[in-house]
Amino acid sequence: MNKAAHQVVVIGAGFGGLECTRALSRAGVHVTVIDRRNHHLFQPLLYQVATTSLATSEIAWPVRHLLRKRKDVTMLLGTVVGLDTEGKRVLLEDGGSVPYDTLVLATGARHAYFGHDEWEPFAPGLKTLEDATTIRRRILLAFERAERETDPEKRRALMTFVIIGGGPTGVELAGTIAELAHDTLSGEFRNIDPGTARVVLIEAGERILAGFKPELSAYAGKALERLGVTVELGRAVTECTADGVTFGGETLPAGAIIWAAGVAASPAAEWLGVPADRVGRLIVEPDLTVPGHPDIFAIGDTAHVEWQEGRLVPGIAPAAKQQGRHVAATIRARLAGNDAPRPFRYKHDGDLATIGKRAAAIDFGWIKLTGWIAWWIWGFAHIYFLIGLRNRLAVSLSWLWIYFSGQRSARLITQGDEDEASDRKGAPSAG
Amino acid sequence: MNKAAHQVVVIGAGFGGLECTRALSRAGVHVTVIDRRNHHLFQPLLYQVATTSLATSEIAWPVRHLLRKRKDVTMLLGTVVGLDTEGKRVLLEDGGSVPYDTLVLATGARHAYFGHDEWEPFAPGLKTLEDATTIRRRILLAFERAERETDPEKRRALMTFVIIGGGPTGVELAGTIAELAHDTLSGEFRNIDPGTARVVLIEAGERILAGFKPELSAYAGKALERLGVTVELGRAVTECTADGVTFGGETLPAGAIIWAAGVAASPAAEWLGVPADRVGRLIVEPDLTVPGHPDIFAIGDTAHVEWQEGRLVPGIAPAAKQQGRHVAATIRARLAGNDAPRPFRYKHDGDLATIGKRAAAIDFGWIKLTGWIAWWIWGFAHIYFLIGLRNRLAVSLSWLWIYFSGQRSARLITQGDEDEASDRKGAPSAG
Repeated sequence: MNKAAHQVVVIGAGFGGLECTRALSRAGVHVTVIDRRNHHLFQPLLYQVATTSLATSEIAWPVRHLLRKRKDVTMLLGTVVGLDTEGKRVLLEDGGSVPYDTLVLATGARHAYFGHDEWEPFAPGLKTLEDATTIRRRILLAFERAERETDPEKRRALMTFVIIGGGPTGVELAGTIAELAHDTLSGEFRNIDPGTARVVLIEAGERILAGFKPELSAYAGKALERLGVTVELGRAVTECTADGVTFGGETLPAGAIIWAAGVAASPAAEWLGVPADRVGRLIVEPDLTVPGHPDIFAIGDTAHVEWQEGRLVPGIAPAAKQQGRHVAATIRARLAGNDAPRPFRYKHDGDLATIGKRAAAIDFGWIKLTGWIAWWIWGFAHIYFLIGLRNRLAVSLSWLWIYFSGQRSARLITQGDEDEASDRKGAPSAG
Repeated sequence: MNKAAHQVVVIGAGFGGLECTRALSRAGVHVTVIDRRNHHLFQPLLYQVATTSLATSEIAWPVRHLLRKRKDVTMLLGTVVGLDTEGKRVLLEDGGSVPYDTLVLATGARHAYFGHDEWEPFAPGLKTLEDATTIRRRILLAFERAERETDPEKRRALMTFVIIGGGPTGVELAGTIAELAHDTLSGEFRNIDPGTARVVLIEAGERILAGFKPELSAYAGKALERLGVTVELGRAVTECTADGVTFGGETLPAGAIIWAAGVAASPAAEWLGVPADRVGRLIVEPDLTVPGHPDIFAIGDTAHVEWQEGRLVPGIAPAAKQQGRHVAATIRARLAGNDAPRPFRYKHDGDLATIGKRAAAIDFGWIKLTGWIAWWIWGFAHIYFLIGLRNRLAVSLSWLWIYFSGQRSARLITQGDEDEASDRKGAPSAG
């Protein structure tokens, strides 16, 4: 480590943190990337791990490998527990600390239960590889249990899958679970017909894909119904238990519940003691610095950034990457002696969501697309944004296989199958 | 389920159990396959998951899918806890039971610590996908910790990897870990040089690959040394702790320890109360039936079967498959009215072991091969025996990628990284 160089510390190796690190190449600074995971996760495809379409290693790459050629970058596997803004140090769980001149908070989000954390064991969210393998196990186990269940009512409950939250993740999960049940598992059971499984998508608001144009929401709703998904609108969930979910005063017994309804930022605001919004995002200045801390930036899901008409910059990968690049440019400008604030302006490239393997909804602003052509554009876009030729080949192979054979390759129940009861209480999972 | 048909119950969907089930196609029987896992595991390549070369889903397939076209087969996900040989029923953990006319015990093996089960948390063995991801995590975490360790002695300990047991699995693990350290991770760390990692293979006997011809053992030893592996012969391990391993009175501090020294059969002998050998294998009759139970067969790692010169049939996939076919043929013969005992005769096709990605040792009896040509034969043989075109393509892609780029695709540290201490005490792992 070049001790004389300006020290930039980036916390979080997600889309924003990695892009900022990339954009600081040859900036004459030393960058330290800290993450509690050794891998960068391609979160837009995480739902495909949860629904047995992709293997864990197809959407995750060791950060150390991605940055191997950057001798100006140090990667640290570690958990941040606080900040010493006086001494300008990042404090780690193991007692160590890392000094910084400029700090970039790109710590991401976890799912939030809006004051009902007790629901988490029954309705896991989808943010990490472990979340995905937990959900995968629960979905597959529900079918296995239904196969051995003789009580028709209990069997029906086991074969009911509830997804809470009608954003892109909820829509994509619901569509893929419906395909898994109705196509992939078809003919493999002797006592049940997986085709009779119910997939219910619950959205408290008036429409799914609320961030999209209304006509695309309507299209997605119809496409989901064609796949056999029941879409329930306008009623909020009031209870999740081991047996099912209550919404609008009605209780629906379920074999697996997935939470796709909300996220909360990581505790960066608590580390700093600065204002945050309702879900914990730091309310940053227009130049993405933290108020009162011009040497600290927050980006991606960690930052609350106004966009237009009272809307916020959305929590999607392109937004985080734009912010990462903006911060890197600001650091370069400052090192060149230009300290004038540089406000961040978000450029929205579009909205994309898939519904199963035949339909997608795309809004690029100048053009709206639906149907199979949108699906292929969605597919190529995601392949393109994957890191590395090898992963592009592997994911292409997996998708072509699913597309033509209907067969999914990662139908593994790992860990927890001997004691799902303890798992429901929150024990770790495997994949 | 056709209640009138002869009911065959196969416990275990490994190589033996699946092959028996296959060979019973159109035999006029109904087969129930019971396994506590939903997947068949291609164990010969499990060490490649542990060493980041392959993804979990590349070597595991849902049993239900493999048997989907066999309407005469029912697959049950369940854990067997005992047998009622009077009532001819298999007893399941959940209180259920499954009736049988003929029972095939193909329950496989776990690793055994020869009376030192307290070593297991420190020296995990390699039998399940979870074992593999646990070992993978420990190896990768040891490098991450070494990167942050400032004490040279502790750093050296973290970068020491010990494999106990010089059979094919131990040799393959040692060779691949050496390649991982010396090639794959090269240049990715800033404070350590992974190339200085030590890989030590400890074998209590006088040579590694003791089941092979002596010249192949010698070749494998040399090939390992070329990869930088230290082979320690003739000294047994007397202690495993969180800090390292003691053998021949000497203590070697280590960052990760892997147990490849011994297996024990599953508790089938206990269910039956019949004689078993030292490691729990049922001592069966020449026709593979359990003494006193002509309607119960034991195959694969569950059975102790004499071969030649006092040697036993080895615990490898081809042997289990031959036994599975033999039992199926016996069941067919009996149904045709021929009750004469049909002794099983093992045909040994050969011995294979790889050492890294450039060398292998093969003994087909009529020809012995070493070097790169043996490696390619080994590779094609394993691709051939994988189930399904999709997996053959995926594994071929993974191997070609490693072969030409040196890069491995599944370098994931999942679960447990926040609390490895509790993991060392035996908590579950993930992949």
